[in-house]
Amino acid sequence: MSNMSSRIETALEQQFSRVQSASAPPRLMAAMRHAVFPGGARIRPQLCLAVARACGDDSPELADAAAVGIELLHCASLAHDDMPCFDNADTRRGVPTVHKQYGEPLALLAGDALIVLAYQSLAQAGWRRPERLAQLLLTICEGTGAPDGIVAGQAWECEARVQLGQYQRAKTGALFVASTCAGAQAAGADPLPWRALGDCLGEAYQVADDIRDVMGQSLQLGKPVGQDAHHGRPSTAADLGLVGAVAYFRQLMQAAINSVPACTSREAMRQLVLHESERLLPQSACDQIAGGQIAEHRALA
Amino acid sequence: MSNMSSRIETALEQQFSRVQSASAPPRLMAAMRHAVFPGGARIRPQLCLAVARACGDDSPELADAAAVGIELLHCASLAHDDMPCFDNADTRRGVPTVHKQYGEPLALLAGDALIVLAYQSLAQAGWRRPERLAQLLLTICEGTGAPDGIVAGQAWECEARVQLGQYQRAKTGALFVASTCAGAQAAGADPLPWRALGDCLGEAYQVADDIRDVMGQSLQLGKPVGQDAHHGRPSTAADLGLVGAVAYFRQLMQAAINSVPACTSREAMRQLVLHESERLLPQSACDQIAGGQIAEHRALA
Repeated sequence: MSNMSSRIETALEQQFSRVQSASAPPRLMAAMRHAVFPGGARIRPQLCLAVARACGDDSPELADAAAVGIELLHCASLAHDDMPCFDNADTRRGVPTVHKQYGEPLALLAGDALIVLAYQSLAQAGWRRPERLAQLLLTICEGTGAPDGIVAGQAWECEARVQLGQYQRAKTGALFVASTCAGAQAAGADPLPWRALGDCLGEAYQVADDIRDVMGQSLQLGKPVGQDAHHGRPSTAADLGLVGAVAYFRQLMQAAINSVPACTSREAMRQLVLHESERLLPQSACDQIAGGQIAEHRALA
Repeated sequence: MSNMSSRIETALEQQFSRVQSASAPPRLMAAMRHAVFPGGARIRPQLCLAVARACGDDSPELADAAAVGIELLHCASLAHDDMPCFDNADTRRGVPTVHKQYGEPLALLAGDALIVLAYQSLAQAGWRRPERLAQLLLTICEGTGAPDGIVAGQAWECEARVQLGQYQRAKTGALFVASTCAGAQAAGADPLPWRALGDCLGEAYQVADDIRDVMGQSLQLGKPVGQDAHHGRPSTAADLGLVGAVAYFRQLMQAAINSVPACTSREAMRQLVLHESERLLPQSACDQIAGGQIAEHRALA
């Protein structure tokens, strides 16, 4: 496990231990943990900490709190999005989803409690740098709630008319933007120069997800495929076709790299983006799609 | 409308207008508003502002933000608790519940977005008093999340064994305690002397709710009755009987009044508590129950 990965897991564990108490309902705590451990790639907190480091990371506890908060908000959104009234997903990351394991009531409450725990994380570290706390909170709220955060993004699925870009920027991009900006703010830096990085990566992530959703069995995803077509959701892969979507994905990843401001960690950030790009959509798969060797798999269309 | 009521409604409206945007999903915004307007008694924000006033209210924007945050968290919890996987309630305050009006997906998301909006409210006002923000946030998080906040209280309904006091303190009391303590903290005062007031009122509120639930048609509630027995929930009325529960309610209200610290607003606080007591359980009804003139109505038991 890399240095940064272990920093994130430790910080997440610490946050749980802070609210562990004999007075807590045990099944709620178990459902919350189920939603968070073991995690996925933890890309959002990685981004947050990478930017904090690039900006000097002079208050690592505050950066940790921001990274933890963002990851908890992400996990809460997954627990809620998996529920029967949305994706009705049985598995996530290869294991049963929260409502499959603990029932709908606890999946709903675990998501709520994780949202609160995210803000608790920031509140607990905030006294160290009171002058940074309000802006940091605002950034993270904007990435999560109304009008343009991930909850609003998910809510676009309940509207009759949706514009693809707006939907994707909110549904995925918003929390990526919050991740890079919060990383800068936690270190006392201006978040603006880091906004584009979050923006490009967020959109690339969504495009990769759309591509993986139609590629289906060609990749091991640990979750059901063909869900976008099945739920009639807007999708870049449906809009541009697989080849067009892959070209767009590569373009976004390049833009992400180009956006990194001049700083001593520029090369490390470039490596992080390249690593993430490979994880999201391996170069070999991109080449095969571009060459027409992998066709669409629309299992449920 | 009293001075304080109009202050609360204005602050709630302002908070919504801050996140109203052409880019917001319109049905999500409508569902969020449906959960908040028109409100109930707004007792929690009233309490918060009353305590802030008693402590000098030297930063009214911060007190408003705390009061708004607490009310939004309360409304979010109602929207989620009404959903089919919990109470499956069709009406609330005499109108359709959020999921009945907008469907389950939007009820779920509206609740999530309201939780975030609550913290946004505090973040937006926090720059005025950065040194108060972290503690204020912590108080409100503790009233809401794990291990002992209202979400944890609701989660006790998913446990095989529940201790009545613990369940009620978390399910209702926690946000009342947060209301009084946050009011003090927003005004830069020590929250500790105000804790007992929130504690007593919260418990009294829950006891009154239990009594009203079994009294049924004798009172106009605007929501279904007999729900506690129907859902097998712990209830003071079931534990102590109606007469015992009413005696306990009166005892708690007296303790609430006695707990108010010496301050220039002591008489105003006493009036607020008496007014709330009458609203929760009219003196006339208490007298009739104590005299055996109103019997239990267990519609669904």
